[in-house]
Amino acid sequence: MTDAATNMRLKLPIICFILEIILIILFGVLVQYNEETDAKEWHETNRTDYENDFYYRYPSFQDVHVMIFIGFGFLMTFLQRYGFSSVGFNFLIAAFALQWATLMQGFFHGMHEGKIHIGVESMINADFCTGSVLISFGAVLGKTSPVQLLVMALFEVTLFAVNEYILLSVLGTRDAGGSMTIHTFGAYFGLMVTRILYRPNLDKSKHRNSSVYHSDLFAMIGTIYLWMFWPSFNSAITAHGDDQHRTAMNTYYSLAACTLSTYGMSALTAHDGKLDMVHIQNAALAGGVAAGTAGEMMLTPYGSMIVGFLAGIISVLGFKYLSPVLEEKLKIQDTCGVHNLHGMPGILGAIVGAVTAAVATVDVYGDGMKDVFPDVASGEVDASYQGGIQAASLAVTLGIALLGGLIVGFILKLPVFGAPSDTICYEDNIYWEVPGEEADHDGQSTAVRMEESEKLNS
Amino acid sequence: MTDAATNMRLKLPIICFILEIILIILFGVLVQYNEETDAKEWHETNRTDYENDFYYRYPSFQDVHVMIFIGFGFLMTFLQRYGFSSVGFNFLIAAFALQWATLMQGFFHGMHEGKIHIGVESMINADFCTGSVLISFGAVLGKTSPVQLLVMALFEVTLFAVNEYILLSVLGTRDAGGSMTIHTFGAYFGLMVTRILYRPNLDKSKHRNSSVYHSDLFAMIGTIYLWMFWPSFNSAITAHGDDQHRTAMNTYYSLAACTLSTYGMSALTAHDGKLDMVHIQNAALAGGVAAGTAGEMMLTPYGSMIVGFLAGIISVLGFKYLSPVLEEKLKIQDTCGVHNLHGMPGILGAIVGAVTAAVATVDVYGDGMKDVFPDVASGEVDASYQGGIQAASLAVTLGIALLGGLIVGFILKLPVFGAPSDTICYEDNIYWEVPGEEADHDGQSTAVRMEESEKLNS
Amino acid sequence: MTDAATNMRLKLPIICFILEIILIILFGVLVQYNEETDAKEWHETNRTDYENDFYYRYPSFQDVHVMIFIGFGFLMTFLQRYGFSSVGFNFLIAAFALQWATLMQGFFHGMHEGKIHIGVESMINADFCTGSVLISFGAVLGKTSPVQLLVMALFEVTLFAVNEYILLSVLGTRDAGGSMTIHTFGAYFGLMVTRILYRPNLDKSKHRNSSVYHSDLFAMIGTIYLWMFWPSFNSAITAHGDDQHRTAMNTYYSLAACTLSTYGMSALTAHDGKLDMVHIQNAALAGGVAAGTAGEMMLTPYGSMIVGFLAGIISVLGFKYLSPVLEEKLKIQDTCGVHNLHGMPGILGAIVGAVTAAVATVDVYGDGMKDVFPDVASGEVDASYQGGIQAASLAVTLGIALLGGLIVGFILKLPVFGAPSDTICYEDNIYWEVPGEEADHDGQSTAVRMEESEKLNS
Repeated sequence: MTDAATNMRLKLPIICFILEIILIILFGVLVQYNEETDAKEWHETNRTDYENDFYYRYPSFQDVHVMIFIGFGFLMTFLQRYGFSSVGFNFLIAAFALQWATLMQGFFHGMHEGKIHIGVESMINADFCTGSVLISFGAVLGKTSPVQLLVMALFEVTLFAVNEYILLSVLGTRDAGGSMTIHTFGAYFGLMVTRILYRPNLDKSKHRNSSVYHSDLFAMIGTIYLWMFWPSFNSAITAHGDDQHRTAMNTYYSLAACTLSTYGMSALTAHDGKLDMVHIQNAALAGGVAAGTAGEMMLTPYGSMIVGFLAGIISVLGFKYLSPVLEEKLKIQDTCGVHNLHGMPGILGAIVGAVTAAVATVDVYGDGMKDVFPDVASGEVDASYQGGIQAASLAVTLGIALLGGLIVGFILKLPVFGAPSDTICYEDNIYWEVPGEEADHDGQSTAVRMEESEKLNS
Repeated sequence: MTDAATNMRLKLPIICFILEIILIILFGVLVQYNEETDAKEWHETNRTDYENDFYYRYPSFQDVHVMIFIGFGFLMTFLQRYGFSSVGFNFLIAAFALQWATLMQGFFHGMHEGKIHIGVESMINADFCTGSVLISFGAVLGKTSPVQLLVMALFEVTLFAVNEYILLSVLGTRDAGGSMTIHTFGAYFGLMVTRILYRPNLDKSKHRNSSVYHSDLFAMIGTIYLWMFWPSFNSAITAHGDDQHRTAMNTYYSLAACTLSTYGMSALTAHDGKLDMVHIQNAALAGGVAAGTAGEMMLTPYGSMIVGFLAGIISVLGFKYLSPVLEEKLKIQDTCGVHNLHGMPGILGAIVGAVTAAVATVDVYGDGMKDVFPDVASGEVDASYQGGIQAASLAVTLGIALLGGLIVGFILKLPVFGAPSDTICYEDNIYWEVPGEEADHDGQSTAVRMEESEKLNS
Repeated sequence: MTDAATNMRLKLPIICFILEIILIILFGVLVQYNEETDAKEWHETNRTDYENDFYYRYPSFQDVHVMIFIGFGFLMTFLQRYGFSSVGFNFLIAAFALQWATLMQGFFHGMHEGKIHIGVESMINADFCTGSVLISFGAVLGKTSPVQLLVMALFEVTLFAVNEYILLSVLGTRDAGGSMTIHTFGAYFGLMVTRILYRPNLDKSKHRNSSVYHSDLFAMIGTIYLWMFWPSFNSAITAHGDDQHRTAMNTYYSLAACTLSTYGMSALTAHDGKLDMVHIQNAALAGGVAAGTAGEMMLTPYGSMIVGFLAGIISVLGFKYLSPVLEEKLKIQDTCGVHNLHGMPGILGAIVGAVTAAVATVDVYGDGMKDVFPDVASGEVDASYQGGIQAASLAVTLGIALLGGLIVGFILKLPVFGAPSDTICYEDNIYWEVPGEEADHDGQSTAVRMEESEKLNS
């Protein structure tokens, strides 16, 4: 029999059904097609079909979608006995978060006569917000029940929308690829949650907190998809034309440079001069994170490469030297090392964005200034002020993320959500029907597996 | 030595070569570039390059293509010893079916002076038709030879084109995402085929008719790709502009809602309150199937979510309670449970489409009515009549699928196609050179594997 | 302890850092945004946003990108103990090669006032050039250190750019999908390199030069992605409009036909009439290679199918009968059989292109002639002369590839690059921290694994 505390027979159905029914009711009351998805309104605009935003953004949306569901989902399958949960809980909380994000972002980003208008851009924004939740999921991976994750998503999406509103709408911050709003926010929120959920006896599950050969290959599917589609991520909601084009290209070069510094640093720091899969799977992506804010700016290709190069170095050093310290001294058990992939590179990206904004000139941007820095183009602020806004936004983001993580961490500690005990973390078998280990011909290994399952659950 | 009956040395080459040579001859006689792919004709149209349908539809086509080859292919790798066949036969029959579908659909959809004109839209339609064959493949998975599958594809594509012609061209049915033409047709055709091919002693292969840990992870690759790209599937051939945009968005929300109800129902119904991978891999997709007909209509976002929510519930209940009954009472051995993923949700989608069509008004659709319901817009029929047409189309589809499956099932029973015996179903080793089980260092497990292979084949 | 010769602690960091710093400096000096990515210039052009090349080519670029990083990377994971290196070294050398290719191709394709202008088209071209390097990687797979691979990429990219310049800019050759410039070049370059690096005692690693069940499934991920996105590859840089559209469609049908002939030939030639995964993983792709040159021409759908059909046959025959001869007689140890997938089909594609060009008429191409054969349209040459140019280009490509491979092969023989000894080829463990074999419950198999690691390294 399964442990009653972690049994999901009632808890999970109840929360899934209640959340979905609330979502449906709120969508029914508040959400409408926007001008580009509504049959009547679109035909009243007299715009030609190819001007519909669908054709500008849908390919980018699908790339982002792949990053959210395949990228994040498979990146986390590196654990030997947690593949079902990594992909499966990623799937569940993302499916919830994107619906909830549609409402929260719509609510904060401006209602139209009391209604939220949606289309491909809101879909991308909802996926972005979901990405932030999945970053936090990486910090607590293996140590939380699906109910806890849904509750975390509920609050985190809300706080994400608040922070995003303050930055983009109140302060006028530019952050198209989300170095701050997505990566910094998601990482520090998750780090604070995992700090509050600190498990002193987690070493009892230590033997499961590592990869096996094939689980590392599955994880590489996630890594490579994130890496390939990051140019689409950063460019998905920038202005049409040169902006989308330039952002994608800057990110492409940032990532390429990051990959070389990651491999170099991994061989330099790892045991016996061998490459460490943890670095390759994660640090090689830091170049995408770090180009999130400045990617749309006139960062230049070599500027992008410098940013990526530094991000890879910082990230590997973080995995090697900082993560052990965070765990031992600060009691932050960061399963996926999100601090190294999203936290520090996110801060780097915010700083690069602030500096790049501060030195922006009409000489360089021409009429393109109004797309990248509308407040500077309109004369409302000057470039150096915009740079200051960018820097202040980083502080705001860190504050909201840490405070939010603190509160939500305590909520998640309530003993009703079915969290696993310290001895059975990183284990699919608690929440999933797990089949036998490998194809076998006499049934023996399956029997062994099941026996162990029973032991775990007794 | 291999069993002579299942030996493919001559059977498979003969059918592959004959089919392909016939295809080449028929293409040579009948098929031409359409106005958008022909160098001369395109330059005579005086349309600008960005008006070429390629830019409206090719990204959607590629998403559909991924669903057909990766989505369906990997979804079926859940069986422990059938991964090569799942991906490999999927690949073979899809490559054949898309060529044959080009001819059959071109033939029925209207020839141009005796020629079939092709471009990206016909490519999407060919992939759609192929999808229907792959759904049927799911019902007979593990129990058929590649020759049987090619023969099944040959007939099923033909009947698909007939049914599609009756619905879309004769009756004026709307079914952009194929709830009826693709899913209902493919499911009930396949169910009837597997009924006719009933194997009374299939329990002798029962130990292979289950998953192992890694095979379930491979299957999740298929599931997630199908889930992500379903919005592209349903919107791939709708009208340009708001129609593609709206359809993709409706499907996106339908799938998200479906995922939450699937997880809830899985935990509620499965053993010990644990999640069942079969449900997650399949039922979470039912929201895409169910939005296939009404997705292009003004279903509203919350309407889409209700449809997806119900589809997930129906699908899990089908896996849990109906499939065992179908197998025991009706002798329908449905390997992948296509009745739960494509059959019932397809019917649900058809009904939702009929209702949504029946209540369509100019007040809601405006000038967009001519894209969604051209017969209603032209005044030829009224909305409630269109609704009736939609409902009648479901009956037609079911009739053709079941009757077709009956006939084709008996054809496939002919003892010349190399079907496996009841004792060696769900086994790659009959049709594939299978390497050793896992990397090993003394060659022992490979030896074991080969020994067993010989036993199977002796 | 690791063998000092293959220890990467200093070698890999040094080469990665030096290369990346040189790249950054050269990009800083030479590279600029082009008119479509520069904020100022784009806004001065007065073109509408949807005319930005981004919207014509970015979806194709992303498909190509997936082919390079997932397609090539996972295709090579078929080896039982070389998955980390296949995906990981593929990732590393591709990330380097695309940056270096940007410079080399920019340098040869025409500087603008001393500067290289970049955008989505140059990104696609850089990925193309990278593909050529990865083909050569396939020939030497399992027998080279990452440092050797980076050195190979450095020289190969340079020679690729020279050959491409001679063909496209000097001779006026047409080769949009790169049957010659990418596939023939990459294959024969790699074959010559592996010939020079001939290892007489490679049979000591023979037991690792084969697949296991799951590694073949991972490889199928690579195969299917290459297969699906090849239409995007061949059409990525053709002219806008009908050209991209037609090229994608021709490739689609060529691949479908190729798949049927591959399955037929595999069953016909393989042991016991069973299908051989090596054929399916590779030969089924030959149709894409063979349509690389003529794909943009008015090849007709059935012409494309004939080409694909022949390519599949040639490729399977090559794997079955030619590869063993090349290895035994010519001492060419071609790990992935790139001669069968890229070499011979590339030559076939070049010949088909020459013939198709020679028979081009204004009657067929109309005003589209200027996009496909600009020199013929302008009257500079006639069609048969263009055909001659195409044929001569094949000879030039073979010459540069073989001579280049010869020289680079000798450079790679220098004993400073950390190549593995003959006894430990095809083994991740030399260059990677490798975790335990499979999830285990008593730690035994991990122990076994580590013990073997130590043996290998002692």
